[in-house]
Amino acid sequence: MSAWGSVLITGCSRGIGLQLVKQLSESSSRPANIIATARNPAGSAALQELSRTCPGVHAVTLDVCSEQSIFSAVEEVQFIVGNQGLNCLINNAAVGSSSSINSVTREAMMRAFQVNSVAPLFVTKAFLPLLQTAAARSTGMGVHRAAVVNISSILGSISLNCGDSATFKSYAYGTSKAALNMVSRCLAADLGPVGILCVSLHPGWVKTDMGGPHADLTVEESVSEILSTLVSFTEQDHGGFKDYRGQTLPW
Amino acid sequence: MSAWGSVLITGCSRGIGLQLVKQLSESSSRPANIIATARNPAGSAALQELSRTCPGVHAVTLDVCSEQSIFSAVEEVQFIVGNQGLNCLINNAAVGSSSSINSVTREAMMRAFQVNSVAPLFVTKAFLPLLQTAAARSTGMGVHRAAVVNISSILGSISLNCGDSATFKSYAYGTSKAALNMVSRCLAADLGPVGILCVSLHPGWVKTDMGGPHADLTVEESVSEILSTLVSFTEQDHGGFKDYRGQTLPW
Ligand SMILES: NC(=O)c1ccc[n+]([C@@H]2O[C@H](COP(=O)([O-])OP(=O)(O)OC[C@H]3O[C@@H](n4cnc5c(N)ncnc54)[C@H](OP(=O)(O)O)[C@@H]3O)[C@@H](O)[C@H]2O)c1
Ligand SMILES: NC(=O)c1ccc[n+]([C@@H]2O[C@H](COP(=O)([O-])OP(=O)(O)OC[C@H]3O[C@@H](n4cnc5c(N)ncnc54)[C@H](OP(=O)(O)O)[C@@H]3O)[C@@H](O)[C@H]2O)c1
Repeated sequence: MSAWGSVLITGCSRGIGLQLVKQLSESSSRPANIIATARNPAGSAALQELSRTCPGVHAVTLDVCSEQSIFSAVEEVQFIVGNQGLNCLINNAAVGSSSSINSVTREAMMRAFQVNSVAPLFVTKAFLPLLQTAAARSTGMGVHRAAVVNISSILGSISLNCGDSATFKSYAYGTSKAALNMVSRCLAADLGPVGILCVSLHPGWVKTDMGGPHADLTVEESVSEILSTLVSFTEQDHGGFKDYRGQTLPW
Repeated sequence: MSAWGSVLITGCSRGIGLQLVKQLSESSSRPANIIATARNPAGSAALQELSRTCPGVHAVTLDVCSEQSIFSAVEEVQFIVGNQGLNCLINNAAVGSSSSINSVTREAMMRAFQVNSVAPLFVTKAFLPLLQTAAARSTGMGVHRAAVVNISSILGSISLNCGDSATFKSYAYGTSKAALNMVSRCLAADLGPVGILCVSLHPGWVKTDMGGPHADLTVEESVSEILSTLVSFTEQDHGGFKDYRGQTLPW
């Protein structure tokens, strides 16, 4: 049996989301269904190519900020996964921005909260019946059963945001990821008892549009580690804040 | 010399904000100016009474969500404090709500972020020139020189939001206070070097409209402890998360 059942990822038009789809589809333990969502799948040639050539990859429209779009996506995914349910939801879509005390605006803060903190909660709520269906069919805790993985950031670590680490200014982004970490923690408290693992995961500093060309890791390197880490998760990791290598980060 | 210079508090129409004004004005080390702000001072008979009867208490209109209101308040406060500047800004105004995974809405989340996380940052930015004026006139770190105190909550502690502590559901409120804690931390990194102390402070569970009648502490008890704790703050406390008794809380 594959370590993975059916997986859904948000924000797969490019960057880490797209690469997760690619490497999952090439993996020897390929998930039954890889639901690669994007707010405009037709706009991403790479995603179109993957969904045409890789068996099990389904490109689905999902704007995480639109309840209507979420509603349509749930219907479509329900049809794809049937009575097996959804085993793993990866809330990856986000907006980045660097903002200092001088440049930050109320609008940038509110936009970051909307996309990076609030949307993952409401996407999770909408897919909860499908995650519960999957959870009810299995035991233990992990991506083989049911999991919500919120892609967070080390910039959302309140503890680490001091001294030299605080030199990278990200008032809007860092604050939204701290809020996302609290969302993960609230979800962990509520969904643990029904067998759904919830974690926040920092993907490393990765060369994508968001991470920029000077980042530490290629997107291939980050995603290889993320995938090994995800399959290693057990109830020990539930409610945690982990990096791509599975190391615990402080809140 | 008083331990306090000029102090400004947001949300003084009732609850902890109003009581801070009352007990500061009765204190033997009464601040030179107690600027008691509220979005509608005329609507609070208690605040009107304090500003009429207590020397040094100034009731000023300030809706923390309105840039126009903030702008007018800064002008008025500039006139009150003159070239002494503002020594202590207490961001106390907030909205509370309990919300479970089922009852929470996008609107409640966004409203909590707006009032509880974003507004304190933009109020601080607006009063920064006055805080810097005060900071430049003194040395050391503390409320005697210049300080930003963000009234947070233990419900914003990501670490503590697990096990039994997670039974009180506050998706919107708790998440907004975790975000506020990150704002405190960003401000601490930026304002420490210019001598402005920044902290997050949990007032305890207090019998106010927000805390309800079953809370642990009367508003008098909470505010007595808060005031002793505030005057005890030194650079050791900079960037910290403290409760009303000065105990450190985990992020
Ligand atoms: N790269 C890094 O160094 C780094 C570090 C720490 C954490 N992260 C986190 O890792 C995740 C992926 O980042 P990345 O580097 O891959 O970023 P990216 O290259 O900028 O990609 C962001 C993705 O999010 C999507 N998105 C944005 N708003 C959306 C919405 N409303 N609905 C649906 N999708 C939306 C984008 O879609 P469009 O193409 O339609 O805009 C895009 O697919 C994010 O959560 C990010 O915060 C990244
Ligand atoms: N009570 C507790 O147990 C407890 C526990 C932890 C933390 N806290 C925190 O302590 C602080 C004070 O809480 P409290 O118990 O005194 O609450 P409260 O009795 O509900 O009072 C809230 C105050 O905030 C003001 N406010 C709300 N929105 C505002 C805006 N846009 N502009 C200006 N003022 C605004 C209210 O003014 P209006 O009268 O105009 O609405 C009121 O004065 C808050 O930050 C709260 O989160 C309280």
